[in-house]
Amino acid sequence: MNAFDPSITDNANKIDMTHGSGGRAMASLIRDLFHKHLVNPHLSAGNDGAVLELPPGRIVVSTDGHVISPLFFPGGDIGCLAVHGTVNDVAMMGAKPLYLTAGFILEEGFPIPDLERIISSMAGAARDAGVHVVTGDTKVVEKGKGDGVFITTTGVGVVGDNIRLQGDLARPGDKILVSGTLGDHGVAILSTRQNLEFETEIRSDTAALHGLVAVMLEAVPDIRVLRDPTRGGLAATLNEIAQQSHVGMILDERFVPIKPDVAAACELLGLDPLYVANEGKLIAICPASEAQSLCDVMRGHPHGADAAIVGEVVEDQANMVQMRTKFGGARVVDWIAGEQLPRIC
Amino acid sequence: MNAFDPSITDNANKIDMTHGSGGRAMASLIRDLFHKHLVNPHLSAGNDGAVLELPPGRIVVSTDGHVISPLFFPGGDIGCLAVHGTVNDVAMMGAKPLYLTAGFILEEGFPIPDLERIISSMAGAARDAGVHVVTGDTKVVEKGKGDGVFITTTGVGVVGDNIRLQGDLARPGDKILVSGTLGDHGVAILSTRQNLEFETEIRSDTAALHGLVAVMLEAVPDIRVLRDPTRGGLAATLNEIAQQSHVGMILDERFVPIKPDVAAACELLGLDPLYVANEGKLIAICPASEAQSLCDVMRGHPHGADAAIVGEVVEDQANMVQMRTKFGGARVVDWIAGEQLPRIC
Repeated sequence: MNAFDPSITDNANKIDMTHGSGGRAMASLIRDLFHKHLVNPHLSAGNDGAVLELPPGRIVVSTDGHVISPLFFPGGDIGCLAVHGTVNDVAMMGAKPLYLTAGFILEEGFPIPDLERIISSMAGAARDAGVHVVTGDTKVVEKGKGDGVFITTTGVGVVGDNIRLQGDLARPGDKILVSGTLGDHGVAILSTRQNLEFETEIRSDTAALHGLVAVMLEAVPDIRVLRDPTRGGLAATLNEIAQQSHVGMILDERFVPIKPDVAAACELLGLDPLYVANEGKLIAICPASEAQSLCDVMRGHPHGADAAIVGEVVEDQANMVQMRTKFGGARVVDWIAGEQLPRIC
Repeated sequence: MNAFDPSITDNANKIDMTHGSGGRAMASLIRDLFHKHLVNPHLSAGNDGAVLELPPGRIVVSTDGHVISPLFFPGGDIGCLAVHGTVNDVAMMGAKPLYLTAGFILEEGFPIPDLERIISSMAGAARDAGVHVVTGDTKVVEKGKGDGVFITTTGVGVVGDNIRLQGDLARPGDKILVSGTLGDHGVAILSTRQNLEFETEIRSDTAALHGLVAVMLEAVPDIRVLRDPTRGGLAATLNEIAQQSHVGMILDERFVPIKPDVAAACELLGLDPLYVANEGKLIAICPASEAQSLCDVMRGHPHGADAAIVGEVVEDQANMVQMRTKFGGARVVDWIAGEQLPRIC
């Protein structure tokens, strides 16, 4: 193919409805794009699904749709995000992520080079995380019935029999830890949307956290809850856990790590960083006696360098999450009732 | 809630962006709609994923996005289709389907009663198929960036060690069987879109086929290939297998089962039923010596009542699929190059 190839028209490099038809165009898209980048024996077999080899242990599955806008953002894109998001959900169950499936919904007219960039990023993220994308599906919808690319990934992993992590296991007296600074992802996306420029570029924290989880569970097997504070941020996630465990929580604002430029951007945008999405951070709840050693272990891992103990679990029949402010007061960290940041993941 | 409840405005019964925010509205949507209908212990646990109990055997996964338009059609809707489609992909690997995950992408403004109807249909199909929807995800996109509801399901099943079904196992001399009439699903959808009325309503054949597959494998364990001819119909699926197995195929038109009203509708619409999608049919390829007994077993099952031996596998370096016509001629059943029926599943 050279620059004078007459077959290269404007349309030749865009997704059209034939790419979802089950015919020749779809087969060549799958072969030339998906299989090329996501190469592994399962995918190459070309069957309707994949037969998996799994080590002993209980099997964990998790699924996540990704509809982020814009598709490309500082620090990542929808491709690596679709890997990280699901790898992290599997990891939050204490499991080692092994396999992913990927379902693509493409909008007619989407540039194929952009799709290739997304798939290549997905492949890189999967390689880095040590997971294989073993089977997938592609659908195409008419222009105006989608928005470029949506990707739904499902992760399969294996968890050892000694690990019990569940949202209903937080107990009064337990400590609450976060693995690093909050709000980076959401602020990076919103800055892009609003064309805001800051002195230093704010980048999404999108990352796979299963390596961090592995060292944490190795050091402190009786962690009670792990959760990644994505949509709705720390606030939504803690409220969810408080309800599941029938407890209250008290945060200490002094210890909640937030980057100065993220804090400044939140001020400017009228956002509360506690409600802003993260894609490379986790929350851990563990017995108080283990909290400091867990925090130290987290700080020894690249994805936990800014880890901190940010609060504790308390008895509270109303299951409220509250925060002691820097100025000595207290405020309720309620669940958001409305929408803060749409299409953040 | 009564008819005079002032909180019931026009918007109150529609999906809005808050339903995807990670906050309170999303939590109540999940609780009041998804958990209510799809009730099972995995889902109620409310974690980021599910821990599965699996019997011995190899694990199979398969994934399928569903973007069908219209969402409701004669014989089914996107909810039951999203169960059947993925259950069937798992079954085509010879596995018993056990669990599903479901990722929803909802368009702002979509009526919640319609969503409930879809989820209820999904729940009924899952119950009938003996599978649990164990974990899921919901995203909301702005009006005009989606099309009502898209559903991506992933299935997990277990296959016995003695079963080997793969697209590359067809051998010259093998027979090709179909489990029933072709084209029902695609014609039902297209009739709806075009507001065509026929004397008798043409209904989609959408159905879960794992029960049929189980009796087939019980009777003839050395079936070589199973595949469900969805998008692109029998033609696309056989071409795919011919390429994977490096063989040719010859069909006999006299034996290809097609309902008279479907054939008539295809005439009217200018469609070739061999290329029209099915959602409750399968193709089996098996050694010639077993073909008749396999066909008899299939006919004894409700989903295989119209099963037929429709052709055979031949040596052909060009991997062509051909058909002997009723009039004694032969024609090539090529892969479709373009789009026949968009958004058929």
